[in-house]
Amino acid sequence: MAEQVAGPEIQRLIQLLARLPGLGPRSARRAALHLIRKRDELLGPLADALQVARERIITCTACGNVDTRDPCSVCCDARRDAGVLVVVETVADLWALERAAAIRARYHVLGGTLSPLDGVGPKDLNLSTLVERVERDGVREVILAVNATVDGQTTAHYVTDLLAGQKVRVTRLAHGVPVGGELDYLDDGTLAAAMRQRTDF
Amino acid sequence: MAEQVAGPEIQRLIQLLARLPGLGPRSARRAALHLIRKRDELLGPLADALQVARERIITCTACGNVDTRDPCSVCCDARRDAGVLVVVETVADLWALERAAAIRARYHVLGGTLSPLDGVGPKDLNLSTLVERVERDGVREVILAVNATVDGQTTAHYVTDLLAGQKVRVTRLAHGVPVGGELDYLDDGTLAAAMRQRTDF
Repeated sequence: MAEQVAGPEIQRLIQLLARLPGLGPRSARRAALHLIRKRDELLGPLADALQVARERIITCTACGNVDTRDPCSVCCDARRDAGVLVVVETVADLWALERAAAIRARYHVLGGTLSPLDGVGPKDLNLSTLVERVERDGVREVILAVNATVDGQTTAHYVTDLLAGQKVRVTRLAHGVPVGGELDYLDDGTLAAAMRQRTDF
Repeated sequence: MAEQVAGPEIQRLIQLLARLPGLGPRSARRAALHLIRKRDELLGPLADALQVARERIITCTACGNVDTRDPCSVCCDARRDAGVLVVVETVADLWALERAAAIRARYHVLGGTLSPLDGVGPKDLNLSTLVERVERDGVREVILAVNATVDGQTTAHYVTDLLAGQKVRVTRLAHGVPVGGELDYLDDGTLAAAMRQRTDF
């Protein structure tokens, strides 16, 4: 074990790095050595960035996004259409939609999906303020941008029921052929959905 | 871009994480979100561990290993045979040999290999103290545990020439069939070497 060679400090660094998604024990060792070799260019700045993140990053109480301010930059952005609310499962999904510049609206991050098998119920998700936001902000449309998985769709149905009493249009993302995708490699369900929801050319 | 969504602090964290070997832009985003979600269990401890590493980890002036003390734990370990010196390219190789408990000896970390094409000459490696160590410590055997690559073998020959004037046995790692390996998948060079260096059963 490396601990006998290099002392507990390096071993601890490796153990923590190995808990990052995408890094295993072997790549964590490589990452630790890389950091030690690049002390001034990488190790120091990363230590500082993590310290800043620890002290300053908070969860937006309005939408569930992470930022250094509350309400977050997205909620505060006056150029966005406050009448449209995009419901996403995670902050990663919010970032993905923003990278795609898919829409200039506000978000509502659920923090996961309903999953009875894993013991995740409505109380475990950021659902309690959703109806309140829709009422208070005069939201016209709620877009369900959840994953096209069983849990995602279960959650979409639950949110739809929750909003049944509101005068709000509930929409969901289109199913279809990915841009750049080849029909031959697509699953039957996607192909059938793309055919049903075909549009004028 | 995520910077418009989540502020420059998170963006900076992602950029630094993406510079770790094994993490690309996408996995760096995932890692950053994972860290933010697990602030107390992971982000904080990792920030601390990096800070400790930044302040305390140094390179052993004797062998080139990294540790929080100089000479390092390996050089200070009296149970090791000081008469045997294992020459390795990198600290990662030193760790690998220690994990395998391959030998209880001391090491000499070159910090790379000679590579004329990349402009790496003898002066760029930790070679100047090698002869001195061999003389001073009464080393009986120098084991060249360098990679079986062209650069590794070039370096091995250079080190051998360097030690030509010393009364020291110079050895190298055996070539052969990896333990658990199948002959059918091995390259011809390895198979031929394994046959030449066959041992009694």
